[in-house]
Amino acid sequence: MIPAKGYAAPGAKIPLEPFKFERRDVGPHDVQIEILFSGVCHSDIHQARDEWGGAIFPMVPGHEIVGRVVKVGDQVTQFKTGDIAGVGVFVDSCRHCPSCVAGLEQYCDESPVFTYSSIDKDGNVTYGGYSNQIVVDEKYTLRVSEKLPLAGVAPLLCAGITTWSPIQTWQMGKGHKVGVVGLGGLGHMAVKFAVSKGAEVTVLSTSPSKKADAEKLGAHHFVVTKDPNQMAATARSLDFIINTVSAQHEYDDYLQLLKLDGTMVLVGIPPEAPVVSAVNLISKRRRLAGSMIGGIKETQEMLDYCAEHNIVSEVEVISMDYINEAFERVIKGDVRYRFVIDMASL
Amino acid sequence: MIPAKGYAAPGAKIPLEPFKFERRDVGPHDVQIEILFSGVCHSDIHQARDEWGGAIFPMVPGHEIVGRVVKVGDQVTQFKTGDIAGVGVFVDSCRHCPSCVAGLEQYCDESPVFTYSSIDKDGNVTYGGYSNQIVVDEKYTLRVSEKLPLAGVAPLLCAGITTWSPIQTWQMGKGHKVGVVGLGGLGHMAVKFAVSKGAEVTVLSTSPSKKADAEKLGAHHFVVTKDPNQMAATARSLDFIINTVSAQHEYDDYLQLLKLDGTMVLVGIPPEAPVVSAVNLISKRRRLAGSMIGGIKETQEMLDYCAEHNIVSEVEVISMDYINEAFERVIKGDVRYRFVIDMASL
Repeated sequence: MIPAKGYAAPGAKIPLEPFKFERRDVGPHDVQIEILFSGVCHSDIHQARDEWGGAIFPMVPGHEIVGRVVKVGDQVTQFKTGDIAGVGVFVDSCRHCPSCVAGLEQYCDESPVFTYSSIDKDGNVTYGGYSNQIVVDEKYTLRVSEKLPLAGVAPLLCAGITTWSPIQTWQMGKGHKVGVVGLGGLGHMAVKFAVSKGAEVTVLSTSPSKKADAEKLGAHHFVVTKDPNQMAATARSLDFIINTVSAQHEYDDYLQLLKLDGTMVLVGIPPEAPVVSAVNLISKRRRLAGSMIGGIKETQEMLDYCAEHNIVSEVEVISMDYINEAFERVIKGDVRYRFVIDMASL
Repeated sequence: MIPAKGYAAPGAKIPLEPFKFERRDVGPHDVQIEILFSGVCHSDIHQARDEWGGAIFPMVPGHEIVGRVVKVGDQVTQFKTGDIAGVGVFVDSCRHCPSCVAGLEQYCDESPVFTYSSIDKDGNVTYGGYSNQIVVDEKYTLRVSEKLPLAGVAPLLCAGITTWSPIQTWQMGKGHKVGVVGLGGLGHMAVKFAVSKGAEVTVLSTSPSKKADAEKLGAHHFVVTKDPNQMAATARSLDFIINTVSAQHEYDDYLQLLKLDGTMVLVGIPPEAPVVSAVNLISKRRRLAGSMIGGIKETQEMLDYCAEHNIVSEVEVISMDYINEAFERVIKGDVRYRFVIDMASL
């Protein structure tokens, strides 16, 4: 076994604290990664506080991982020592269901093995990226270009792929008007990707203060959603909406902004099930859809695209011992747009 | 003006009774139709009782109309005296918005002129098919083959096109597993069309008593939705669901039956907005959509398809003076599957 250290939540109501544990030895198909940066996703907080249920403690969160390969198994073909590698939200899946066969492992019928707070195939609990080392099967490890600033790459592994995937699935791009609801960790990546793909992008936000940032990110329009006049002027104009909000909100307000045959894709899970007017859907043949993370193949495509187009997440780099304050600031929305832990600080 | 007679609701709480009124003179683009059969749609009841608001009284309901052309305007090119013609849910629209230009008049940005309880372009109230005569612009009049029994054709103008349109929009057919929720006026047409298009069709119903009928209509499977075992066995198996139910029900129960990327299309409007789990959508990239009636072009295509494939609605022909009892029976679901008024009885 490989000795590892990190930060863990000992229980649902307890702040994260230093934690020592072990990683499995490097198997024939495994890659051992020395973690350089780990993004802080809002879902880390939900899980560390057991707000979704099923949490396993002690929990080492973190599923936006970038690091350097320090060892590879003897069957590994895609990685060699010294490469930069990434790990996202899951580290394995059944590999034989139709979703896995199609490269859509996130929709695995048996559920993927999540990067932390999950039971791995060897029966051990998985520990995430708030740590110095991780060992992952190469099939679930991503290749990362050294061209990009690596702190900004880490959030691509969850916030990036979660917004990239619906853009690719629904082929959003040139000629499309795309709305993005919520300018946070996910939303700011949705804006960057949609703009990069040639779409005309409108940021829909409750905070007028985010207008300047939206423009800086490349958005073409900004709508303050609390302003009925601005909302009315946007009615029936959008082909797509990427809705990144996971707080309770009025879904119908946004559905009305879609034109005939328009689609709103949910990537955030609110605490209570959304209420959606059937009339709103029927009267313009609109569609409400959901999308979850992305498969390994499309995550690699996204990372390659980002390297080619010089796209990274906007981040605030923090040290490991700042994590509990960072959690509080994420909850308040006080981060533009992602905290990333510099693991050298561990 | 042309003298006409029919049955009207004098007010929201008053039974329908004989009513005399006038139709406009036949204009250069108009077709005058002597009505032979008029279907009884559940929405006639909602409107006659002002359950949706905005009702105009006295109201002559009826938007599933088949009759014989008795006069045409001098600019009319598609119809001649003696032809069989149909009229559906709307009789005009703005004709210039993107939806109208695309032949999707039902989604007209200015709202179509509905066949009854609507204000026509000349400022007069529209009166529907529970009457002996109607005058309609030929652009909103459908050609009907004499090959089919005309009583069974009438419901195609609403129940038929409302289920045909989503089948065409989403290209449901060979290789697809299609569920139909609710085996009523719309549902039984959805089954006939989906079966005819080559889909593997599952009827989802609360009433085990409808199994024999479902099979007679051509359905391949029947699931009693109150049976958790049958529902569990159907989970994640359907490509599409056509949901025809307009009563309150649990939408999530049905969403779970969709496989990855599956779509449930709503064609019924429940009294309260549906509650839909975001997790159910996100976890399998499912889509919830709506669809409303159909455009004139696709209604004509459906009628031509029905003539070619010998498809009509299952009907119980009634006399005009039975209409108030018929309404009560529709509300109880006591009709297989559509009442159609024989206008000779007026």
